Amino acid sequence: MKTNLKLPLHGIIPPLITPLLDNDTLDIKGLERLIEHTISGGVHGIFILGTTGEFASISYKLRRELTERTCKLVKGRVPVLVGITDSAFTESLNLAKIAANCGADAVVLAPPYYFAASQPELLEYLQRIMTQMPLPLFLYNIPSHTKVMLAPETVKAAAEIPGIIGMKDSSSDLAYFKQVQYALKDRDDFTFMVGPEEFMAEFVLTGGHGGVNGGANLFPKLYVDLYEAAVKRDFKIIHELQQKVMQISSSIYNIGNYGSSYLKGLKCALSVRGICSDFMAEPFHRFNKPEREKIEAALNALELQ
Amino acid sequence: MKTNLKLPLHGIIPPLITPLLDNDTLDIKGLERLIEHTISGGVHGIFILGTTGEFASISYKLRRELTERTCKLVKGRVPVLVGITDSAFTESLNLAKIAANCGADAVVLAPPYYFAASQPELLEYLQRIMTQMPLPLFLYNIPSHTKVMLAPETVKAAAEIPGIIGMKDSSSDLAYFKQVQYALKDRDDFTFMVGPEEFMAEFVLTGGHGGVNGGANLFPKLYVDLYEAAVKRDFKIIHELQQKVMQISSSIYNIGNYGSSYLKGLKCALSVRGICSDFMAEPFHRFNKPEREKIEAALNALELQ
Amino acid sequence: MKTNLKLPLHGIIPPLITPLLDNDTLDIKGLERLIEHTISGGVHGIFILGTTGEFASISYKLRRELTERTCKLVKGRVPVLVGITDSAFTESLNLAKIAANCGADAVVLAPPYYFAASQPELLEYLQRIMTQMPLPLFLYNIPSHTKVMLAPETVKAAAEIPGIIGMKDSSSDLAYFKQVQYALKDRDDFTFMVGPEEFMAEFVLTGGHGGVNGGANLFPKLYVDLYEAAVKRDFKIIHELQQKVMQISSSIYNIGNYGSSYLKGLKCALSVRGICSDFMAEPFHRFNKPEREKIEAALNALELQ
Amino acid sequence: MKTNLKLPLHGIIPPLITPLLDNDTLDIKGLERLIEHTISGGVHGIFILGTTGEFASISYKLRRELTERTCKLVKGRVPVLVGITDSAFTESLNLAKIAANCGADAVVLAPPYYFAASQPELLEYLQRIMTQMPLPLFLYNIPSHTKVMLAPETVKAAAEIPGIIGMKDSSSDLAYFKQVQYALKDRDDFTFMVGPEEFMAEFVLTGGHGGVNGGANLFPKLYVDLYEAAVKRDFKIIHELQQKVMQISSSIYNIGNYGSSYLKGLKCALSVRGICSDFMAEPFHRFNKPEREKIEAALNALELQ
Repeated sequence: MKTNLKLPLHGIIPPLITPLLDNDTLDIKGLERLIEHTISGGVHGIFILGTTGEFASISYKLRRELTERTCKLVKGRVPVLVGITDSAFTESLNLAKIAANCGADAVVLAPPYYFAASQPELLEYLQRIMTQMPLPLFLYNIPSHTKVMLAPETVKAAAEIPGIIGMKDSSSDLAYFKQVQYALKDRDDFTFMVGPEEFMAEFVLTGGHGGVNGGANLFPKLYVDLYEAAVKRDFKIIHELQQKVMQISSSIYNIGNYGSSYLKGLKCALSVRGICSDFMAEPFHRFNKPEREKIEAALNALELQ
Repeated sequence: MKTNLKLPLHGIIPPLITPLLDNDTLDIKGLERLIEHTISGGVHGIFILGTTGEFASISYKLRRELTERTCKLVKGRVPVLVGITDSAFTESLNLAKIAANCGADAVVLAPPYYFAASQPELLEYLQRIMTQMPLPLFLYNIPSHTKVMLAPETVKAAAEIPGIIGMKDSSSDLAYFKQVQYALKDRDDFTFMVGPEEFMAEFVLTGGHGGVNGGANLFPKLYVDLYEAAVKRDFKIIHELQQKVMQISSSIYNIGNYGSSYLKGLKCALSVRGICSDFMAEPFHRFNKPEREKIEAALNALELQ
Repeated sequence: MKTNLKLPLHGIIPPLITPLLDNDTLDIKGLERLIEHTISGGVHGIFILGTTGEFASISYKLRRELTERTCKLVKGRVPVLVGITDSAFTESLNLAKIAANCGADAVVLAPPYYFAASQPELLEYLQRIMTQMPLPLFLYNIPSHTKVMLAPETVKAAAEIPGIIGMKDSSSDLAYFKQVQYALKDRDDFTFMVGPEEFMAEFVLTGGHGGVNGGANLFPKLYVDLYEAAVKRDFKIIHELQQKVMQISSSIYNIGNYGSSYLKGLKCALSVRGICSDFMAEPFHRFNKPEREKIEAALNALELQ
Repeated sequence: MKTNLKLPLHGIIPPLITPLLDNDTLDIKGLERLIEHTISGGVHGIFILGTTGEFASISYKLRRELTERTCKLVKGRVPVLVGITDSAFTESLNLAKIAANCGADAVVLAPPYYFAASQPELLEYLQRIMTQMPLPLFLYNIPSHTKVMLAPETVKAAAEIPGIIGMKDSSSDLAYFKQVQYALKDRDDFTFMVGPEEFMAEFVLTGGHGGVNGGANLFPKLYVDLYEAAVKRDFKIIHELQQKVMQISSSIYNIGNYGSSYLKGLKCALSVRGICSDFMAEPFHRFNKPEREKIEAALNALELQ
């Protein structure tokens, strides 16, 4: 599989939220503003249809439209990665073909998430799907949602399959991800990206390639600067920026007692800042006024522009 | 919402396996044989696109085709229930509309299964989806796959929504399901169906309406007879037939160390009996020869025709 | 191992709550009243130091004292079973020796609950501990607390070890327990007792031996009568009494959003009825006034004496 | 509460394995060798009766003996921390008193591990136990074993209780631990120690105080050197030593399909190196010959003395 991507990828690749007007309508203006906002903040790529993008909650029609529009809006300025995770093999391939036709650079795939497959089943699944995959692929580990962890030995075997070029880990278990990296220590072309922004800097300091951090929707420059400080090992800047990241994590992502607080807070904050709508696809619903006021206060307290 | 169904439903409604030739092709002959086999065994309804039907693993095109073909093949002889569970609200509604157009009698819906919603979010989700639902709906509780339990109070509130007419519980937690039944003790029109066949008889003995039991794909008459013995409180027959059900559970559903042993064993046994193909949709794969031989031996040992 | 127990055991064996005055002091008067209350209600045995007895939260000194006092107070009127579950092998044996010295009839053992052992490790653990066990032993399955399920094949192998005479299942998964029973279908001396009272009647109707039901602390006669109705297959009485049991389950065990609501409600209700103190060992704490008032109202609504 | 400890603590504090001759007998010679081995390797403290020390599996008598002997053997050369985690409040306090009498410097406490308490219950539990606590206390978060996570806000509130001086996190979730650190960002006297050795260096690089790393039983100098390299931000050394740590993690801790592989491998390796017995307390059992040979090979491949 040929690719123009320079491997491994590096930097901050925001998992784009999906701006919505209602359950089945894109907020097109919001999408455009969000893409311009993140690219002007210096992000190194754009990842649509991830968990933060509520991929599983929106229709195929909408996933197709989002893919088309994003590729057009990005216009090749940064690589576009498209999530193709699905419980159905055929639908994942359909999405991959759409992504390829739109000119996306790579796809991202988590395990099927209704049935929890065993490790041998997962490896065989990957082997089979890669025979028809039109784009390079990143593995996506997110056991909180898929009920299954990609074992280090499964990743090691999968990395031998042509076309599998990297991995995003959202397990939040850094010991696990270090084990995966160690299992692939001879593969300097393989990209390791970490989901949780709270330790993106630590991850990059010792050889990780970057972060797929939700907060980069909101403050792309902050995460890009933190990434670059980590690359330069500038601990003064790391400390300063990491405190901001932790403040975001502690004041924007944890309002209410929802498993969905992170997503709700992030979309609400983007709406407060005038970037896009905070409508959420079912089964989630946007914050009401009292929670929105907390988000407003949290944004003011951050003193970030 | 009008319905011709006589509520509550009663009896054995097999969760039909989906006969497949490959990942995206129905085994049409097998489907026909399976439907005739189950209806001639006396089942009281047919439920397609449930967990046993691998609904989440097959494409939308295939789900549509299966729905159309099943309704045509059943020709109104028994009610047809169609699973519309999906992580995307819009796709669930699309499937419901297809089911309605095909003349299905009801739909069956488990919670969205990528994001685990909270109970208030689930209730609001149900309220919203029911405003556009063209058919009566059964709730489907299967926390092992959806990561969320429908709390008794959520079911109680949901049962007030017009069009929600019953529930299938596959939690295997009978204490929980008794609590749900108690919460709805004044609703004698609400149907309670239990997934695990191992205690279907117990469930029916004290007021449950029947079972959505996978084994009824294979030996429909056995489960129908057991159901009827439970209705008649004929303990001699109950004991005798329940031993057969337990023998099936212990010799057909537990080969190998797979979470998917039940599904693999069931499909393999149907293939051994010449009813339909044992092809499984990704991420699962059919049994190989050594496991198939164990299934053959188990079927012989059952001495059921 | 010799035993005077008539096997299998039958009936209602309440898992006695442990009446406490403070974290390290028995409510001796309360214990006496509770034992008289349950025995006069017709229970078929007494089980101390189970989960409902807060065994894990009280000191060894107290467990010894409770065992001594209970055996003395019961005076052989019904069998006394003593929980010896512990994370430490040696302490379980120490408790078993105390139980034997006090004249208890059997002990009850769940898997060690800090480290979750694998099935072969569990079987070997049972084989080793039985070589020194002075009393017959019931297995106790409670995966919610021990993090491990006793697999049917583990129970089947364990049942071969001399001295292991039965099992109590608190998994609430009746399909599982039916599989265990089926695996041991040739062992008519092996006792099967179910924890959740919500389906004790169903369990007894098809061959289960009885219930270790928490509510029998409070209303022993209700559970004994329900058990006997199930034995006699008197469905009218079963229905009537089961409604009471469900009312208890729905109004006494679920106040507040605590994992510990069942225990708190049960102890509070015993205190309201003047039987014993509602003090709870750390890390739990008794209900405050508003919750106690709900318990009072629930007890009144039950119309049971 | 007065303490001679210089707070916050820093460095490598091995969670000492407990050398055993049988289920209830210390390997006294082994213990002495192990203590000398770790202290001569430069460790900054010794932590006995943690998870790695199989605290939950050994009797109270043995826990007392181990505490006494360890304090005597260490002779104040480094601080001694004693695990007092127990499901029973009173037994935790008994252990704390023993530790204080023996001259230990601090105690370490995870939540009660049979009943999973809610966050308010946990905070109240900590408040109550601290009123009688004779030594400073470290919180210990290990949700895999206790079934409960200490929420950042619970830790923040607990840190206000006099005597609670630090925390060890073994959740392996670095995003979580960064949130705890951020919640306590104004408390520069509060110690943060991380369990998983795979990312101890990363943790120290951005402000963590050190590691309670199992591998430091085996190769104390390796972990001390890695810690010091992290303090000095010497990335060349960090990389080199971290590769060794990952090699240990990947070749010694993961033999066989046991949840207990880490513990078994660690004890086996200590035995191979002649430091102490590899006997394991129930419900675990030492490796057999084939697995021991793998450990021998892994140790040789490490090329560490």
